[in-house]
Amino acid sequence: MADERAMSGEDSIIARYFKPLATDAGALGLNDDAAVLKARGEDLVITTDAIVEGVHFLANDPPDTIARKALRVNLSDLAAKGAFPAGFVLTLALRDVDDGWLAAFARGLGADAASFECPLLGGDTVSTPGPLTVSITAFGHAPPDKMVQRSGAKPGDRVLVTGTIGDAALGLDILRGGRVADALADDPAGRDALVARYRVPEPRNALAGALREHASAAMDVSDGLAGDLTKLCAASAVSALIDAPSIPKSPTTAALLKRGAISVETLVAGGDDYEILCTVDEARYEAFAERARSAKVELTSIGTVLAGTHIPQFLDEEGRAIVLKRLSYSHF
Amino acid sequence: MADERAMSGEDSIIARYFKPLATDAGALGLNDDAAVLKARGEDLVITTDAIVEGVHFLANDPPDTIARKALRVNLSDLAAKGAFPAGFVLTLALRDVDDGWLAAFARGLGADAASFECPLLGGDTVSTPGPLTVSITAFGHAPPDKMVQRSGAKPGDRVLVTGTIGDAALGLDILRGGRVADALADDPAGRDALVARYRVPEPRNALAGALREHASAAMDVSDGLAGDLTKLCAASAVSALIDAPSIPKSPTTAALLKRGAISVETLVAGGDDYEILCTVDEARYEAFAERARSAKVELTSIGTVLAGTHIPQFLDEEGRAIVLKRLSYSHF
Repeated sequence: MADERAMSGEDSIIARYFKPLATDAGALGLNDDAAVLKARGEDLVITTDAIVEGVHFLANDPPDTIARKALRVNLSDLAAKGAFPAGFVLTLALRDVDDGWLAAFARGLGADAASFECPLLGGDTVSTPGPLTVSITAFGHAPPDKMVQRSGAKPGDRVLVTGTIGDAALGLDILRGGRVADALADDPAGRDALVARYRVPEPRNALAGALREHASAAMDVSDGLAGDLTKLCAASAVSALIDAPSIPKSPTTAALLKRGAISVETLVAGGDDYEILCTVDEARYEAFAERARSAKVELTSIGTVLAGTHIPQFLDEEGRAIVLKRLSYSHF
Repeated sequence: MADERAMSGEDSIIARYFKPLATDAGALGLNDDAAVLKARGEDLVITTDAIVEGVHFLANDPPDTIARKALRVNLSDLAAKGAFPAGFVLTLALRDVDDGWLAAFARGLGADAASFECPLLGGDTVSTPGPLTVSITAFGHAPPDKMVQRSGAKPGDRVLVTGTIGDAALGLDILRGGRVADALADDPAGRDALVARYRVPEPRNALAGALREHASAAMDVSDGLAGDLTKLCAASAVSALIDAPSIPKSPTTAALLKRGAISVETLVAGGDDYEILCTVDEARYEAFAERARSAKVELTSIGTVLAGTHIPQFLDEEGRAIVLKRLSYSHF
């Protein structure tokens, strides 16, 4: 800067905390109004997700985990769409400037941007009298017309999910001092594991290439498995039958369910899983499963795509339909 | 949707108000997790700007103007960078669901998306306990490596701005019941004109092609002419000399200045102009001015780029340097 006076508080925040992250040439050192992204002859896949203090994260969550969650929920969308990360822009609405908080936030963001090879390209920092809000728009590359959509599921396809389901919703309940916190009063390690799943999801970007090659439809589970599967089925004009006991659960979650401390509904309507839900033709299943093993991503068959447009059904161990009062988390 | 239960409040907002705007094939009808943008062999120019209730707009501003401003501040960046609009994604953080408000917001957004040929590609709707926040990331096309940057200004170049400067800052003062409101107590038409400039800026997208062809550097004036020129000069490692009386002003603003009701500083440090500030080599000036005339964009020479890295100087009618206590609006 030519003169000290030219650097506003906003410029100074950007210079101090975010310029070090803007290593990609297209970011122009965050010195311009816009960034440049080269498409390399591919389609750009664009996703945007915002997280709000008190809604998607808690005010006392560690700032580095807030940053990582904000980026990872977007990376999870790119993964589900079979796209490779190309970069992101960040909008930060801040109530005040807390240097310790910002330094930790930028550190977490930078670490994930580097490890997922998704560089910061630009952004906007604004003041707000309200809750801290982190809005990220992320970009991915996919070969022309190869983005995996929600709409390709066919009757007979397997329904698959990565990782485990329900942990994050239980983690949130613990942070809010709910009944899961009580149920795990004697299990601090179990509590910590669930809270960690809520705070820092594990996007499955390692599976993007395999999804593009083999999945007939895919999306990430962000609002709850039941609701998200319903959306995928609706987009594909199909239904599905899910074997609830086969839904993958972490040991802590499985134990809570067995004890009756939680219900299946808590797991499948809870949200914040950021696992991948996909459908794969039976003939491609083995090849896909092999790719998942190579990528070290846990993959579980949980059901089958059916013809029809009725809402997907979840069956219990006796084959009876589970009545779900709600399917997912909704903001409104 | 397969079942009524599958449609959450958030889905319903999207279906009712925003799907009608998502006419581009890449938006996938807002039925997917991501959008697809075809780069057509060009660079993607990416810009992001958020506006917050109580900071960038007022709670009782008409919802259609809030939507239009949110999109136009981004369109203005694309224009300044010489990029043609390709689309945008919207993140809306809402305190509650007010159907009348949302309908008007979507109507304003749709009208501008259509007239600027910048379709809605996707978005995220989240709840917030805080102020309404509208965050938009917009995309533009520019031929490879042709985005106009801030960094190309050369000594001897003309410094030019489009439209008029300062009106929006005065409009905000009026809405806040400040001294400009008093000074224009007898001039409701003048007040309305300034308020309109604050609420709905006029992005200069018609000038994008000419800027790409002729400008050595450009940016849009969003935080104040003085501060933004200082940034452009810093990025270009030059300085500038500005003839303050030649800064283009609307009749109302010019009259206020003449009466001493406002100072030059109010105009050049006020922000929210969303006009284009650019530098053009003298040899290209006539061709550029001709293009501006064809595009019906008012263009005014206000000074000259100088060698050196001192802060740009604004001279008054007697050629004396004007001391500016502040250069621009800063959030922090």
